[in-house]
Amino acid sequence: MSRLLVIGTGLVGGSFALAMRQVGRFAHIDGYDSDTASANAALQRGQIDAVAPDLEAAVATADAVLVAVPTNAIAALVRRIAMTRRGNSPTVMDVGSVKGSVLAALRSSGAMPATFVPGHPMAGSEKRGSAAADAGLFRDRPVILTPQPETDPAALERAREWWTATGARVVETNAPIHDEMVALTSHLPHLVAYAFMNWVEQPHGGAAADFAGPGLHDFTRIAASDPAMWRLILSENRAAVLAQYDGWSASMTRFVDLLRNGHDDELEALIGSAQAARLRMVERGEANDG
Amino acid sequence: MSRLLVIGTGLVGGSFALAMRQVGRFAHIDGYDSDTASANAALQRGQIDAVAPDLEAAVATADAVLVAVPTNAIAALVRRIAMTRRGNSPTVMDVGSVKGSVLAALRSSGAMPATFVPGHPMAGSEKRGSAAADAGLFRDRPVILTPQPETDPAALERAREWWTATGARVVETNAPIHDEMVALTSHLPHLVAYAFMNWVEQPHGGAAADFAGPGLHDFTRIAASDPAMWRLILSENRAAVLAQYDGWSASMTRFVDLLRNGHDDELEALIGSAQAARLRMVERGEANDG
Repeated sequence: MSRLLVIGTGLVGGSFALAMRQVGRFAHIDGYDSDTASANAALQRGQIDAVAPDLEAAVATADAVLVAVPTNAIAALVRRIAMTRRGNSPTVMDVGSVKGSVLAALRSSGAMPATFVPGHPMAGSEKRGSAAADAGLFRDRPVILTPQPETDPAALERAREWWTATGARVVETNAPIHDEMVALTSHLPHLVAYAFMNWVEQPHGGAAADFAGPGLHDFTRIAASDPAMWRLILSENRAAVLAQYDGWSASMTRFVDLLRNGHDDELEALIGSAQAARLRMVERGEANDG
Repeated sequence: MSRLLVIGTGLVGGSFALAMRQVGRFAHIDGYDSDTASANAALQRGQIDAVAPDLEAAVATADAVLVAVPTNAIAALVRRIAMTRRGNSPTVMDVGSVKGSVLAALRSSGAMPATFVPGHPMAGSEKRGSAAADAGLFRDRPVILTPQPETDPAALERAREWWTATGARVVETNAPIHDEMVALTSHLPHLVAYAFMNWVEQPHGGAAADFAGPGLHDFTRIAASDPAMWRLILSENRAAVLAQYDGWSASMTRFVDLLRNGHDDELEALIGSAQAARLRMVERGEANDG
């Protein structure tokens, strides 16, 4: 009888549990959360079969563990699981938005567990908690796996199969590239959207709300994301975010200088390149979705 | 028998025609487009009742005219309508994204026509053409009217009633405030999204596409917008866009400096303010939608 333990029964943990339930990959799904109310809510919503009252006991019988907790709590939990199940570890997956800091913390506390498959589903939401969980959250979304030299190929294969079963498309890369690319595609856009929302209410006493069309609503959706979580993500991926900011900032300056100096032909050409890049991204996304 | 003439049968013109048809405000809707194929397409899609072969003739019998053409062509058309129907003008509405430049061009060519009601529906799309037209395009979206001192109150009232009948919520302000606020809520986000898309394919040979989640897709949707149209909008609203860029840029620098210097508590507080602003905007939008 195969058992899944989900540690952290929020949006991502609850969604993974629901997706696994839908495809019947596990006979039993336990949920554990340091916030017992959250675990109970996940149980009531039918996301898990039982609330694990004791973490060690649940770990002892699990075949697979999803660690879906804030990035700064991941390494300690993975270490604890490895210690509890020394020589007989379940396959352990995480969902941390930053990989370098998690892996460094884990290495600093001992050997890299061979059954740990670091991962990151690019499928969050500005919403949080099990109330927002959705069996389809990962469908057609990238899940980035960053296996380590020590990672057991069989564990990697199992993790890959489970993630694929959620409908996600699995991408494998190394941790530094992951961290740079998510700095670019996720962390920097959050920073930009936050900075935008902190300015948008200033002119004319907040009149902007009267002028907000669908473009602005989509552009700033991610600014609704949780401050504590994003403080953590941004600070754990600080160097990569700052590097991507520099690159984007140079691009921004180029646009603004052309506009400022009335070089409208060149501005239009640059807008054309940007539009083409956007259309390529959508096309590639849709091709991947199919 | 009341007749509407839509000049420019693209996304906005076609959508307005469809919305008017749905609420039965006009007995007949003519469409005119300098691109005859576009007018014929609107006819085939049932957006208009007839293609006007001759602009002057169509203007001669119209009770209302919607001028839905690029911003740099609006003033000349409004002037032409006023000349054709001297002393007996239909109510004329435009949909230009910038108001100051349109009104200045109009004033430079003669008196401000009393039956012209300048307007701007905040309901575009990155898509273009009558194929994308939708009777519900304006539903729950702001339409900004910027009446002039010369504007006939009865013409303003008619324009207000028609726009309201599309499902839009009408906001009245003056042209300078309109231009500043759309620079903030629409033009600057386009510039930022364009600059982002021009950078995003650089690192690691365009690997970003593999890492693009829903956040990035929403954040950059507006970067698919038409280059020729946006060159025009940005250049016609140059000063306001640059001023808003400076404001947002100062906010951005503040976020980046806190991140760079490891002031994570203050960073989290600033993220918290931004999140609150975003939640207020959504709440206000939803309240307005109701």
